[in-house]
Amino acid sequence: MPGNSFGQFFKVTTWGESHGKALGVIIDGCPPGLALDEKDLSPEIDRRRPRGKTATKRREEDKPEILSGVFEGKTTGTPISIVIWNKNVRSHDYSKIKNVYRPGHADHTYQAKYGIRDYRGGGRSSGRETVTRVIAGAIAKKILTKKRCKIISEVLLMGEAPRGDSSGGIVEVTVKNPPSGLGEPVFDKLDSDLCKAIISIGAVKGVEVGAGFEVAEMYGSENNDEYEMRGGRVRTRTNNAGGILGGISNGENIVIRFAVKPPASIEKKQRTVSLRGGRREISVKGRHDSNITPRVLPVAESMVAITLVDHLLRQKAYDKL
Amino acid sequence: MPGNSFGQFFKVTTWGESHGKALGVIIDGCPPGLALDEKDLSPEIDRRRPRGKTATKRREEDKPEILSGVFEGKTTGTPISIVIWNKNVRSHDYSKIKNVYRPGHADHTYQAKYGIRDYRGGGRSSGRETVTRVIAGAIAKKILTKKRCKIISEVLLMGEAPRGDSSGGIVEVTVKNPPSGLGEPVFDKLDSDLCKAIISIGAVKGVEVGAGFEVAEMYGSENNDEYEMRGGRVRTRTNNAGGILGGISNGENIVIRFAVKPPASIEKKQRTVSLRGGRREISVKGRHDSNITPRVLPVAESMVAITLVDHLLRQKAYDKL
Amino acid sequence: MPGNSFGQFFKVTTWGESHGKALGVIIDGCPPGLALDEKDLSPEIDRRRPRGKTATKRREEDKPEILSGVFEGKTTGTPISIVIWNKNVRSHDYSKIKNVYRPGHADHTYQAKYGIRDYRGGGRSSGRETVTRVIAGAIAKKILTKKRCKIISEVLLMGEAPRGDSSGGIVEVTVKNPPSGLGEPVFDKLDSDLCKAIISIGAVKGVEVGAGFEVAEMYGSENNDEYEMRGGRVRTRTNNAGGILGGISNGENIVIRFAVKPPASIEKKQRTVSLRGGRREISVKGRHDSNITPRVLPVAESMVAITLVDHLLRQKAYDKL
Amino acid sequence: MPGNSFGQFFKVTTWGESHGKALGVIIDGCPPGLALDEKDLSPEIDRRRPRGKTATKRREEDKPEILSGVFEGKTTGTPISIVIWNKNVRSHDYSKIKNVYRPGHADHTYQAKYGIRDYRGGGRSSGRETVTRVIAGAIAKKILTKKRCKIISEVLLMGEAPRGDSSGGIVEVTVKNPPSGLGEPVFDKLDSDLCKAIISIGAVKGVEVGAGFEVAEMYGSENNDEYEMRGGRVRTRTNNAGGILGGISNGENIVIRFAVKPPASIEKKQRTVSLRGGRREISVKGRHDSNITPRVLPVAESMVAITLVDHLLRQKAYDKL
Repeated sequence: MPGNSFGQFFKVTTWGESHGKALGVIIDGCPPGLALDEKDLSPEIDRRRPRGKTATKRREEDKPEILSGVFEGKTTGTPISIVIWNKNVRSHDYSKIKNVYRPGHADHTYQAKYGIRDYRGGGRSSGRETVTRVIAGAIAKKILTKKRCKIISEVLLMGEAPRGDSSGGIVEVTVKNPPSGLGEPVFDKLDSDLCKAIISIGAVKGVEVGAGFEVAEMYGSENNDEYEMRGGRVRTRTNNAGGILGGISNGENIVIRFAVKPPASIEKKQRTVSLRGGRREISVKGRHDSNITPRVLPVAESMVAITLVDHLLRQKAYDKL
Repeated sequence: MPGNSFGQFFKVTTWGESHGKALGVIIDGCPPGLALDEKDLSPEIDRRRPRGKTATKRREEDKPEILSGVFEGKTTGTPISIVIWNKNVRSHDYSKIKNVYRPGHADHTYQAKYGIRDYRGGGRSSGRETVTRVIAGAIAKKILTKKRCKIISEVLLMGEAPRGDSSGGIVEVTVKNPPSGLGEPVFDKLDSDLCKAIISIGAVKGVEVGAGFEVAEMYGSENNDEYEMRGGRVRTRTNNAGGILGGISNGENIVIRFAVKPPASIEKKQRTVSLRGGRREISVKGRHDSNITPRVLPVAESMVAITLVDHLLRQKAYDKL
Repeated sequence: MPGNSFGQFFKVTTWGESHGKALGVIIDGCPPGLALDEKDLSPEIDRRRPRGKTATKRREEDKPEILSGVFEGKTTGTPISIVIWNKNVRSHDYSKIKNVYRPGHADHTYQAKYGIRDYRGGGRSSGRETVTRVIAGAIAKKILTKKRCKIISEVLLMGEAPRGDSSGGIVEVTVKNPPSGLGEPVFDKLDSDLCKAIISIGAVKGVEVGAGFEVAEMYGSENNDEYEMRGGRVRTRTNNAGGILGGISNGENIVIRFAVKPPASIEKKQRTVSLRGGRREISVKGRHDSNITPRVLPVAESMVAITLVDHLLRQKAYDKL
Repeated sequence: MPGNSFGQFFKVTTWGESHGKALGVIIDGCPPGLALDEKDLSPEIDRRRPRGKTATKRREEDKPEILSGVFEGKTTGTPISIVIWNKNVRSHDYSKIKNVYRPGHADHTYQAKYGIRDYRGGGRSSGRETVTRVIAGAIAKKILTKKRCKIISEVLLMGEAPRGDSSGGIVEVTVKNPPSGLGEPVFDKLDSDLCKAIISIGAVKGVEVGAGFEVAEMYGSENNDEYEMRGGRVRTRTNNAGGILGGISNGENIVIRFAVKPPASIEKKQRTVSLRGGRREISVKGRHDSNITPRVLPVAESMVAITLVDHLLRQKAYDKL
């Protein structure tokens, strides 16, 4: 079974390569009647754009174009197809890496799995693919906003690197006022699907919920969140659970942290092999970010938003039959 | 969509409550012709059994019974149904918790989501559910063994707790000689599905692959795994990627670590509320583990094995058409 | 991907062979709070039991046992596991057909596909498997009854056969007062899923909706159902569409007809081959129905009920966000 | 769960409305290494084009554009996105039907289900949607050709209609030299999925396999296909089963027939109601086919091809582990 769709109900299917004609996304299962316009998408796309001193000098001008599923400014319940055209493509930058595996990249595994790969800019494995996630996420966020739910994120740790090298970081995403009752035990628990969503972002190597790895050194009496009544609802006094118990959201803020690895493309020389198995040294030149942590924020928020909307619809199906 | 199935091809569906008549699992999609017997399952079930000083005194005698899908000692390609009867059930132990939410447990979220819950021993949210995962995992491991792939695990950190309290730990799972080419970008990456699998185990609050959270403080030149030819294959000199690049296994050992929280059931008094919202204090007595980290090992190995076999079959579908 | 599950939301997974220990069904996604008891299931199981002069003399006493998902008489939202034990099994009846393919049966295709088969009584391909569909259908019907929707069926044509031979028939299923708005274009249309459900019953070789095959000889002006207002709702004056337009139910009665083939097990001698390819003649003796058309009624109603409840839940997910 | 995807492995997702900017299809799960070019798609698209005296005068010039998943003339295993731009759109033709339900069309059910609809030319429910199925089908056929499997179809019955009215027909699809062993009992049987595929085509109201509805009047001794050895393989002497037994292909030709209804758009006056419930008469003018039976051939072949490739990949996953 192919792996380019995410979600059961708010089903997001992405396509496109870094240096192909275009990238795009189909959202099948967006509820009808939602006001939607290209202008709703651009601010999120802009947040993902490279900026600051660690960012690539490459300018990305990504104007989304809605091709279906919206009529007279509203979603119709039919699939929403949105495309982004690749304009700023410089294929010749990538001719040198055609026959050699870049360390830390997916060149080798794609070649091994598929027997063929679009080597231009990483093809399908490029971080550029995440722009389509951000588009779907912008729509998901619109739906969550109607539920007064808001997703924010921040960089907790931002590494620094000497020139010619790269660095990583740590990000925290918080869902404020999430719907409660979301999550489908025992396998599609909300935390399971959120962690899957986050780890599916290329650069992420670890993820934790609430107190996360710290629980390993806590006592049960410290880690358990005691209950109290507050504002007429059952609330927890602490939030070590990160808003999810038994795989189901309890209405407290959902808190997720994850680690972002340093970008694999570095100018510093590294040892590698060619497709034919010969020894090589490689220095990846070009317009690359030396740290992508800040750019991951809107991508992570988007994956969280998509997951939440998907589970919101899943839960709705069973509500008050 | 309900959440009690895991996997697309090697599809595992579990059912049953802690104090119901039985628990069970259906494996739909096990390849035909595999030798299979109840005796193949028992050793793995035994590994999950409580033992040592941190374990519950409750004796669990779990004899699996194969009800379908096996004929004359071999799988037939039809669904394999396996049941475990609940014998050692003492429902009266749980009458006190019927009307009160135990901190750290799923009592409250199940009640909020479903409007009803089997409160005896946690019902469906009980750790007892994992016995069915271990059964499916034992079958998955048999398939992996044919591919000379082996899964091991160890406790890296084991907390200690004063009497009446509980503690957590950290576990590492290693897949030795995994098949390469497994994983379906961009959402069903192998690491995404492995992390989902691990986080779906009730007590797990964080998970990482390879160098994991440490990547946040590494340079790209440190984190990237350089390539070399070894034994006639493309190999990496280091394994910070934990055997997975771009969401696809590269043939190096797959390494996953995760944090196990301290069990929520503790004798120490905690504040909570009743179903009607009244203030309560609770002390959870009974035969409970004070640290379940060692018992999680076979469960985690099982989830990893199920995920790998599922992806093995998924990849096979596309191989050499 | 294995094929023993039906439905996305009201997800029915069946298992078991004709002459194995038991057969069973898991219903994952049954809404919580539904009153459910073994007694709800028995009347439907009884309707499927052989009776009359065309029926097998074999007595089937099928007592369903609910193993999970029900607590204090109500569904809890967790998977409902129900088992039927095979008691009346006479394996020696089937030893003669171990090495020969019975014409019209699935012996040959199962052997070819899986390389192994449980030859006792047809194993998984036996009509006995449908008892588990009827159990799931009984639960689905309980849900539809709450919506004041009722499913009935009748035999339109019942063939007769000389002694030693068998005959077929035609059945019509009508859904009275179905919910409108069910069906998910463009592939999971309600009629698509209903026809899939019906054809998945072993003996069915053709299916039609509303005017069915007759539309081929009608004019558009005859076939189109004109609209009028009736009882304050948009209604059609005729119902050639069989209650479904554009793949979505319009609230009129849903009407489906299908053809049932004559049972393949006949005493009359037929030519066939052995597993090794030798020529054989076969006469299938034993307690077999000579016409199963009446026994298919509850099975067909069950498949229709399951499909409707599944689509009811699917539609509910998008309703009034 | 939304319904715009078909297939588990060779997964086809379509999008687009009749009078929107474009229509398109994503094929996720096409095996890598397949030669593919826009020129492979055009002949099939042309076969679907209106022609002859029963066809609309509207010229459709549908040039497919491949946007992803193909590199240097070969598929890469990543999602293939193909778009068709709507050029010949005359929206003003449809302003009259904005507020009235056309009999036989999906206007009313779409409005009832979604609360909103793109009324221009039927929007998503238009037959124009099938062009995207034909594109996916053309790729599926390329794969089947490698297996020496060929799909043909013919019109068995073609109705005639007086001016201002429309007529239907009957079509037969034959799969020559199909792979054996395809189909996943007990629900995803090959005939179940083929019938679902065929019924999902808007105009189809009935479908049958092999002897189809005639089995209702046959004896078992007539309907059973006797076995013999031929060309070193187990073959049937007749093919009443239509190439499928127990839901699994047996290698004989697969034969499917289905009924096509007369197009709903007719000039002849019909009674209907407006969105507000007022009585109306309607005469649907414009460039419409009076019989679409011949145009359905490539669409039906495409759905059969997609279903077969999907099951081919599903079966491959379990083959010789």
